[in-house]
Amino acid sequence: MVKDTGRKEERPRAYLYAPKKRAGKRNAQGHTYMPKNMGRKEEIMAESMLGLKRSHRCTEVTKDNVGSEVTVMGWVQKSRNKGGIIFVDLRDRSGILQIIFEESNCGAESFAKAEKLRSEFVIAVAGEVESRAGGVNENLATGEIEVRAKSLRILSESETPPFPIEENSKTKEELRLKYRYLDLRRPDIQRNIRVRSQVATLTRAFLAEEGFLEIETPTLIKSTPEGARDYLVPSRVHPGSFYALPQSPQLYKQLLMCSGYDRYFQLARCYRDEDLRADRQPEFTQIDMELSFVDVEDVLEVNERLLKKLFKEICNLDIELPLTRMTWREAMDRFGSDKPDMRFGMELKNVSQVVKDTEFAVFKSALENGGSVRGINAEGQGAMPRKKIDALVEYAKGFGAKGLAYLAVNEDGTYKCSFAKFMTEEELHTLAEAMGAKPGDLLLFAADRDKVVFDVLGNLRLELARQLDLLKKDHFKFLWVTEFPLLEYSEEQGRFTAMHHPFTMPMDEDWALIDRDPGAVRAKAYDIVLNGTELGGGSVRIHQSDIQSKMFEVLGFTKEQAKDQFGFLLDAFKYGVPPHAGLAYGLDRVVMLMVGADSIRDVIAFPKVKDASCLMTEAPAQVDTKQLVELGIEISDEKE
Amino acid sequence: MVKDTGRKEERPRAYLYAPKKRAGKRNAQGHTYMPKNMGRKEEIMAESMLGLKRSHRCTEVTKDNVGSEVTVMGWVQKSRNKGGIIFVDLRDRSGILQIIFEESNCGAESFAKAEKLRSEFVIAVAGEVESRAGGVNENLATGEIEVRAKSLRILSESETPPFPIEENSKTKEELRLKYRYLDLRRPDIQRNIRVRSQVATLTRAFLAEEGFLEIETPTLIKSTPEGARDYLVPSRVHPGSFYALPQSPQLYKQLLMCSGYDRYFQLARCYRDEDLRADRQPEFTQIDMELSFVDVEDVLEVNERLLKKLFKEICNLDIELPLTRMTWREAMDRFGSDKPDMRFGMELKNVSQVVKDTEFAVFKSALENGGSVRGINAEGQGAMPRKKIDALVEYAKGFGAKGLAYLAVNEDGTYKCSFAKFMTEEELHTLAEAMGAKPGDLLLFAADRDKVVFDVLGNLRLELARQLDLLKKDHFKFLWVTEFPLLEYSEEQGRFTAMHHPFTMPMDEDWALIDRDPGAVRAKAYDIVLNGTELGGGSVRIHQSDIQSKMFEVLGFTKEQAKDQFGFLLDAFKYGVPPHAGLAYGLDRVVMLMVGADSIRDVIAFPKVKDASCLMTEAPAQVDTKQLVELGIEISDEKE
Repeated sequence: MVKDTGRKEERPRAYLYAPKKRAGKRNAQGHTYMPKNMGRKEEIMAESMLGLKRSHRCTEVTKDNVGSEVTVMGWVQKSRNKGGIIFVDLRDRSGILQIIFEESNCGAESFAKAEKLRSEFVIAVAGEVESRAGGVNENLATGEIEVRAKSLRILSESETPPFPIEENSKTKEELRLKYRYLDLRRPDIQRNIRVRSQVATLTRAFLAEEGFLEIETPTLIKSTPEGARDYLVPSRVHPGSFYALPQSPQLYKQLLMCSGYDRYFQLARCYRDEDLRADRQPEFTQIDMELSFVDVEDVLEVNERLLKKLFKEICNLDIELPLTRMTWREAMDRFGSDKPDMRFGMELKNVSQVVKDTEFAVFKSALENGGSVRGINAEGQGAMPRKKIDALVEYAKGFGAKGLAYLAVNEDGTYKCSFAKFMTEEELHTLAEAMGAKPGDLLLFAADRDKVVFDVLGNLRLELARQLDLLKKDHFKFLWVTEFPLLEYSEEQGRFTAMHHPFTMPMDEDWALIDRDPGAVRAKAYDIVLNGTELGGGSVRIHQSDIQSKMFEVLGFTKEQAKDQFGFLLDAFKYGVPPHAGLAYGLDRVVMLMVGADSIRDVIAFPKVKDASCLMTEAPAQVDTKQLVELGIEISDEKE
Repeated sequence: MVKDTGRKEERPRAYLYAPKKRAGKRNAQGHTYMPKNMGRKEEIMAESMLGLKRSHRCTEVTKDNVGSEVTVMGWVQKSRNKGGIIFVDLRDRSGILQIIFEESNCGAESFAKAEKLRSEFVIAVAGEVESRAGGVNENLATGEIEVRAKSLRILSESETPPFPIEENSKTKEELRLKYRYLDLRRPDIQRNIRVRSQVATLTRAFLAEEGFLEIETPTLIKSTPEGARDYLVPSRVHPGSFYALPQSPQLYKQLLMCSGYDRYFQLARCYRDEDLRADRQPEFTQIDMELSFVDVEDVLEVNERLLKKLFKEICNLDIELPLTRMTWREAMDRFGSDKPDMRFGMELKNVSQVVKDTEFAVFKSALENGGSVRGINAEGQGAMPRKKIDALVEYAKGFGAKGLAYLAVNEDGTYKCSFAKFMTEEELHTLAEAMGAKPGDLLLFAADRDKVVFDVLGNLRLELARQLDLLKKDHFKFLWVTEFPLLEYSEEQGRFTAMHHPFTMPMDEDWALIDRDPGAVRAKAYDIVLNGTELGGGSVRIHQSDIQSKMFEVLGFTKEQAKDQFGFLLDAFKYGVPPHAGLAYGLDRVVMLMVGADSIRDVIAFPKVKDASCLMTEAPAQVDTKQLVELGIEISDEKE
């Protein structure tokens, strides 16, 4: 039953890997393949593939194969001896298949080997497909059949794994990551990795179809201090000089537009030496694209169709196009966030006008200092215990609030209110009405500078949604956030910095404000947001050198600094640059949301942990002094 | 004629990028888009895309469009004024389209702008497609038509480029690479980059179809001193520790097989800090794959079909399968090379037996020292002038030959021979006959240790083929070289080293020799060779821990060294490892051969030069001391 390729005869030269004496053997009878005199110890059981050929993956064996012989290979998921019959659940990438060993079928030698099988042994089994004697197992794709073994080879033994190979393991993440090669065997992680592969394949196929060329850009590049911290790579040929690993292919993709490639994409590895969070890794993959001769609309349109395709194929989800769009201003006003989670309401309301004449000092002083008073309505939460409200107040303080004012509408229409003594009943009533409160609702208010108010209420809104279990993982709400501010003022640096990056095009109608009120200029920048996570973002780029020069001036670059950092891009722009725009997605985040993973680490084959180390390989590690000498660098003596 | 997307009305929120006053305008009349009071200087000509939408790429405009209006955008290839009509060749990624401007059609303002056009200006033109008035231009895809401009916008001006944007430029490579963004506009380089993108797309589609999953592996990994020199990346979080950039994903892909992914591939960026040659770069891309439950035959079979598909789709070449296969031994004997160029014959012949009893000391001593005497027949080159033969002798010396013996058969059957006085006429005749020489042929002999003889004659064979113009770039000869030696002896290190890598499986029938004669053990390793270039290579891996341990022992590793360097792999192999094998191609080389490029730099968008620097960005470069302090490293003082 073991298949031969049947092609040797056609070959110009005989090329048989099998030793001649075995070449004619066409069964999988499990002899160890090496004569004893070849120096291998007898107790070693690992046998070779010699002469074997897999005919099916486990779940490729179906009812249609009943009566025929198959050769399957994989890992022993479990094995049990029940009255002289050995039942083995064989696992491969496709799933599980039941094998049965009876001595009368497989012979004494194979049966003896089958008796030794333990979890995670790797075996090859040849046998006949039968309908299940013991009745259908509804939980298995192959639940209607089983394979009656005729022969067995043990291809590899296994020690007892440090944790069981099963779905939704409760094993601690440290242990899982130390033995990542075992963790990667678990069905849920295998599904994640498979989805990731599918997303990449579908994305590439879609973009190729749309006229995008995949072009690789270098990863040993020049360091540009703007942005996050670079990973550096010392140069051996040029001692004292360094490459940087790219934070994104930004400049290269713009150069490719200058070079006339029209539509570029790349699944690009990017690097940022930042402190890690749950959704960050030192290296990550970006679906990166750039288009020439386009404006905002064109970029959004093609990307909406890409998202529609991906979520249809992977999640069987029908996204309605066009996706909802919202300006940055509106997103902040309604949700207190530039990446609002649209799976639930609980929108912010600005009640500054309503409370402006009340005597409550907290509200008053916020308004006098140019801030605002805004609230959210946690519907039906009017009976929330004081202790829980206090916890929310503490949570809000974590985002800069000095406090949190609340007003609960009791079922009888009376109020329980933290600032009742500073307002008349009438004022409270007007306020509750402005917030659309009904009996049983809980209103929470923040009063401060806008930035703080948004931050506090935006996060409070999310926290309440978590507590009320409003964030369903299988509920997908997309949103374009547009018209971001071009600049944001950095108190730390005492100057404006680019919100997106220094090449972002201002909105045509706002450019006149660049000198008078730079903070008011909006940009042709856009983010794609899914369930409160920024999946990606991009912008139209500046293609006119006078606007670019002005941008650098506003950002506080001297001409020399601009030339030093971006000289080759500015030079390139002297020779005819097309209008262009682009967008980049975080692939890891896209996959994480698709599969409902809690951590980005669950969708990366070999992730790093918070201190940027790999628990499996123990990288980073010390290296030979010889290597450092060649690179012309030394490790600094620690001073403290 | 300027298209609107026509979708705004469907949108839930009005989202108009165009200022309201322009939103209704539906033509491309080229006003600069910003009122003068917006601070831009009047002489700046770069206009915006506002309200414009491209309808076709240049060569998408065909005869079928005659009579309709199109909007095209691109670069001015050339522009000339002929009797009041301005002819512009407009270029984009797709090719060239002729535009004509007449003031009566496009109006005074556009005509005035058209008069200013120079090479590499970026423009948008709206106009009507017409059959060519001036007759068909056979050299252009769009030679039957032209576009009569109705309006023009200058999207970007251009200075005069430092070299012309044209095919097969004679421009020096340094200048081309400094201005790579301009060089990348040249049609031949654009074709190369496009082919590269197609190869990647086709490869991915093929492998996905064959059940391979594309899985990304990390690029910040642990340094392993074995192999080429690593690029190192200092760790900020762990001062004194370093990551390495991967030379290949070798260990990770083997781990993925351990983890049950069955078939893996990746177009993986790899790094080697070696001195560069024409076909090497510090970073390069590998088509990397690994398969479980397979032997040599399975790997070769699927890869032959991949190559067939690629060369059919890209080069329209029908490769006959199976490809020729040859053992390493045979390749050395017949061609003096483990990557023989099969486009021509001129095979080596071993004449040791023929000359063993002659008195010629050079031959004699080579044989006495365990070497051999071998020759090649340069057919029809018998009349080669002495000076040219002397040059070949010098060439041979470059590969370690002490000299080169020759024997020319004159047209009259007599001999001109460098060693005639040491042999009888009869002996010369027997030798010529053994070499299959005819009148007019030139025989060249090397006598030395086998290694030197192969090196000399293998290279001489190639040099003669170059001189005789036998190496046609459109002639593709594939070859599998198999059964490589498992080990090679390193005089420098005084020990055996792995020819492929330490995880390569020995051939079953040779393993018994591992202690007695390690150098004689062949490996389940294979290379795919095209026209004398190694496109890729791979091997079956060891999956039995006793064989792996023995390999490390033979390679001179202590147990501690093996554990230190490959501990996580050896640990992984304790938990059930499937038989597995893999292969990796150098993508750059594959594309280079497909497009007939002379250098790998012509198929990489942004390549580096021999000293591993980038002429365009001037990377590597000095970095801020602050960055080094954060990383805990210092630049060594130069001692010399």
